[in-house]
Amino acid sequence: MSGAALIGVDWGSSSLRVFRIGVDGSILETRRSADGVFTGGGPFEDRLRAVLGDWHEAPILLCGMVGSDRGWRLAPYVAAPAGVRDIARAMIRAPFDRPAWIVPGVSFSDGETREVMRGEETLIAGYLARSTIGRATLCLPGTHSKWADVVAGRIVGFRTYMTGELRAALLERGALASGIEQRPSPEEFARGARAAVSGVTHALFQARARRLLGTLAPEHTAAFVDGTLIGEEVARETASDVVLVARGAMAESYAAALHGRAVTQVDPEPLAAIGLLELARQAGILPAV
Amino acid sequence: MSGAALIGVDWGSSSLRVFRIGVDGSILETRRSADGVFTGGGPFEDRLRAVLGDWHEAPILLCGMVGSDRGWRLAPYVAAPAGVRDIARAMIRAPFDRPAWIVPGVSFSDGETREVMRGEETLIAGYLARSTIGRATLCLPGTHSKWADVVAGRIVGFRTYMTGELRAALLERGALASGIEQRPSPEEFARGARAAVSGVTHALFQARARRLLGTLAPEHTAAFVDGTLIGEEVARETASDVVLVARGAMAESYAAALHGRAVTQVDPEPLAAIGLLELARQAGILPAV
Repeated sequence: MSGAALIGVDWGSSSLRVFRIGVDGSILETRRSADGVFTGGGPFEDRLRAVLGDWHEAPILLCGMVGSDRGWRLAPYVAAPAGVRDIARAMIRAPFDRPAWIVPGVSFSDGETREVMRGEETLIAGYLARSTIGRATLCLPGTHSKWADVVAGRIVGFRTYMTGELRAALLERGALASGIEQRPSPEEFARGARAAVSGVTHALFQARARRLLGTLAPEHTAAFVDGTLIGEEVARETASDVVLVARGAMAESYAAALHGRAVTQVDPEPLAAIGLLELARQAGILPAV
Repeated sequence: MSGAALIGVDWGSSSLRVFRIGVDGSILETRRSADGVFTGGGPFEDRLRAVLGDWHEAPILLCGMVGSDRGWRLAPYVAAPAGVRDIARAMIRAPFDRPAWIVPGVSFSDGETREVMRGEETLIAGYLARSTIGRATLCLPGTHSKWADVVAGRIVGFRTYMTGELRAALLERGALASGIEQRPSPEEFARGARAAVSGVTHALFQARARRLLGTLAPEHTAAFVDGTLIGEEVARETASDVVLVARGAMAESYAAALHGRAVTQVDPEPLAAIGLLELARQAGILPAV
């Protein structure tokens, strides 16, 4: 196996992913565990050492909640507008017996609005390293979906939507929960998106009322809820060209909600490795190409 | 103790309240228990007999989730527009060894929108029995807040907002949860209401971002969330005159969000008894006055 230029660590709230990154940004090998920042236990250095095992060949770069105030060591937010170089310069050294750094998150203020991201900045850095487009709006769906505007290689602003968290909270318990396995329904997704026009707190109850009246199949509840929440998110974002950083069913749902706009889909899986490599180069940890 | 004209039973999802109702609609005596439709167990007739004890003097009228498909016996929804007489005529007999009836809920369709209520129709019947206003918009806050338009003694339409359920789901777990006792904050409530203008899925994350950035005190999270959810609800409802059927902190929050409109506050506590008495009379179970 050829040597890695960098060991990447994507350490989120509930999962840990480490990968050997080649000099071209390719992922040579990946290890995954459920030892997330909040779900795992014990000293972070021991947990990292355990997952790295015999991977000793390269410096280590970590991103995600590991740099939060509940993580290993706080890497304070960099205020947007911020380019990859600004983020790279704000990386902090991890208290480890090998060269290791933690990528900071990014914050943004707009009037009374306050935004934070931690992890997505690395995916965006990966996108920027490979893109030749000067201006784009990126949609990164998830527990807290991010919509980021990038201009000339910098994150100039972003917005967060609690779409994923609301979805989980609503479907796990309460009036919209059901013990039934959920199935896709483009019709109910579209209906949910239409209902969102009257506001999500109103639209969501439609799922309850229609189930009680027998006009919504219990197994289509999630489809309707997704339509409502994603529909609301997409309606608030007005970009006519969207770079959708998602895969699988998530990508399909967002693409459906974005129907009529120009959507470029990008697979998020390779982006973290490319972003970490770029950040390491900008920070001078690795030589520039 | 003077005799009751009617025994009222307000049997909701998580609580049971029975009261002896005087001929003038006053509550002579109340018993409460946590034996709700979903939280209690055993045959409904045994549970009702246990709570009634020696109250044998009058017919029984039940309202709330006891008439749902998961309750004692289904009392199908009456379609709005519906007056108190329409609801009274649709009451069903409960399978009990004493005269007992169950009040149905009310449903409403408007285009693709579907609405249901069960329990609130009795409070509205109580309001209508005492009001001389020909046209009003009633706000009944709760787990599923209702806004009902009444015209000439009939419920002509209504809307539901999942305000209370979303509040509980968001504050109990996830990014907005905190182990800290919550305290009122009119400033944060107002800030939440302003944030709601950009949509609740966006506005709610502000509480998270501002806590991480140190500009929102953890004990004011609920105030901001309430401002967002109630602000969204109130912004969707355009009535300039509102009858607010609420008491205590709930009434204060809604009154704050409705600032600038004409608000008449009505205590919900006596309304169920008055409504049940009126329904019993309209159904001919009790003589009309």
